[in-house]
Amino acid sequence: MGTEELPGLVRDESKQRRLKIGIVGFGNFGQFLAKTFVKYADVYGINRSDKSNAAKQIGAKFYPSYDVANFLKNNLDVIIMCTSVISFEQMLGTLPKDQLRDCLLVDVLSVKMHPKEVMMTSLPPSTDILCTHPMFGPESGKYSWQGLSFVFDKVRISNPKRADQFLSIWDSERCKMVEMPCELHDEYAANSQFITHLMGRILGQQGLRRTPIDTKGFENVLNLVETTCLDSFDLFYSLYKYNVNSEETLRKLRESFALVERQIAAKEAYIAARAEIAMDERTNLLEECRAIIKEALATSTLQGATSDALVRKLLADRLDEEQKKGGQPQQEQQGGKQV
Amino acid sequence: MGTEELPGLVRDESKQRRLKIGIVGFGNFGQFLAKTFVKYADVYGINRSDKSNAAKQIGAKFYPSYDVANFLKNNLDVIIMCTSVISFEQMLGTLPKDQLRDCLLVDVLSVKMHPKEVMMTSLPPSTDILCTHPMFGPESGKYSWQGLSFVFDKVRISNPKRADQFLSIWDSERCKMVEMPCELHDEYAANSQFITHLMGRILGQQGLRRTPIDTKGFENVLNLVETTCLDSFDLFYSLYKYNVNSEETLRKLRESFALVERQIAAKEAYIAARAEIAMDERTNLLEECRAIIKEALATSTLQGATSDALVRKLLADRLDEEQKKGGQPQQEQQGGKQV
Repeated sequence: MGTEELPGLVRDESKQRRLKIGIVGFGNFGQFLAKTFVKYADVYGINRSDKSNAAKQIGAKFYPSYDVANFLKNNLDVIIMCTSVISFEQMLGTLPKDQLRDCLLVDVLSVKMHPKEVMMTSLPPSTDILCTHPMFGPESGKYSWQGLSFVFDKVRISNPKRADQFLSIWDSERCKMVEMPCELHDEYAANSQFITHLMGRILGQQGLRRTPIDTKGFENVLNLVETTCLDSFDLFYSLYKYNVNSEETLRKLRESFALVERQIAAKEAYIAARAEIAMDERTNLLEECRAIIKEALATSTLQGATSDALVRKLLADRLDEEQKKGGQPQQEQQGGKQV
Repeated sequence: MGTEELPGLVRDESKQRRLKIGIVGFGNFGQFLAKTFVKYADVYGINRSDKSNAAKQIGAKFYPSYDVANFLKNNLDVIIMCTSVISFEQMLGTLPKDQLRDCLLVDVLSVKMHPKEVMMTSLPPSTDILCTHPMFGPESGKYSWQGLSFVFDKVRISNPKRADQFLSIWDSERCKMVEMPCELHDEYAANSQFITHLMGRILGQQGLRRTPIDTKGFENVLNLVETTCLDSFDLFYSLYKYNVNSEETLRKLRESFALVERQIAAKEAYIAARAEIAMDERTNLLEECRAIIKEALATSTLQGATSDALVRKLLADRLDEEQKKGGQPQQEQQGGKQV
């Protein structure tokens, strides 16, 4: 876990045989990787629809899906699955397993436990498995991969030299190399990536616009919506469906929403109750005053001129008593009122 | 509406009589304003608890709440209410209305229709009313007010010179002067300030932490939580309770949450249905093939050596037919997969 410099890797690829890398799924993301891979390796792409022109421009060899037999005849060192999360299992199923015995199989999905389990279950025991999550894409990594996070887990590696040679591509491109178990990745992701997408999707439906009185906090909200709503619903769905932790994240968020609504209701009730009690106390006080005045008036018929002073004393005593009780603060202090 | 330069204001206060400004509620925010006001005006503070030391340091004269009569004997030009939203109405009620006839009453609350209505209802018709929302406070305006938004609405002004002299303080401090009706302020605020606080409060309960694999979107989430959860629950409650638009904002957000959950459920159902249909079609295809083979075998007993070719032709016809039907795409293209 954490960032690693991978100091043991040999960066000078001239001393090594060039890797042969097969890319299964030669769409946007597959082509994006191929553009960099060709600097370090021979690249072969395979895709259902024709991408031969794109492959030619990049300098990769292209095969249509039905020609998988010839694609695999290239003695590929590494096969990297560039499919969506949803179609990953099905796509892996289209590859003849017995021809993958000597390969390193790599995935690049945004969830990690799912592809790990699928590959562990369906691949021959001699196939090496490397689970990765390049946390960037054609947009964010358009000009450079420098400083962008590359998460990886050496799930099952019998040929460490080959795996390291493949990893050295990302390291040479100055990615931030983050080695992390698939399980931990998904734990983190549910409480960062998924919650971000969830909030972004919910807020994205509010039709929010910039106003002349935007606060800094609201700028953050707008940025959040912008960064997440560009991504497909399929990706969002995958972050939910194929990460065991996401359901709990969704549940907690739903609960917190309800809790905030309950807190508002409780505050309303509290303020109403306080106002009622204050009113009751005022009524009681007035009644007591009335009784005192009656008493004073009764006394005054006996004692004449001292009645005024007596009323004043009785009232003062009563008010003093009230004050000692404390009562409610008249005024709330302003803390961080302004926003 | 929009920013204004207020070009007509006379900035050189030496040509004008110094204003006498009374601050009702001499807590954090009242003191914060007083520190700047003393540069332009004589400042008088009144507060329930004793703030005479703070007032002395600032250069203002202090009165305890019970001494409101003497506080008002200063012939105040402007009285600015620095209370919380919740206690605003009650605090205004403690001022003897007939002594406010010749004053300009100002509020600084984060909601605007509520104080406008309270002041319009309870103040004498000759009292001038200016509703304002300085969108900053002791933290953000610690060193300078330059560029910070000051929203105001001249609700009822019979003495424009006095109001302009008061506004010129904010303008001289280089605030971004935003003149806007209270109603529009609250419309904007419900869809910016309130929604920001609501999201911040909900997310604040998730116990989110930075992880080694944070995305830019998640940074926005963390910033949102940090900027909103410093503010009091009372402020959040006020943004809800005292802005007529906030209930609708809360309702829409609750609906969007439910909608996203329904979208997830719909996607699950869709994928399951597609898988089922694909399985059904495969079963049908196999059964038809079986029938064709039986037919071919039956024919072969009659025609001998041509049976192989016949089976091949029948199967090819059937598969061709299937292909024309189209079927489901095997593979989903990767759009903005990575995040």
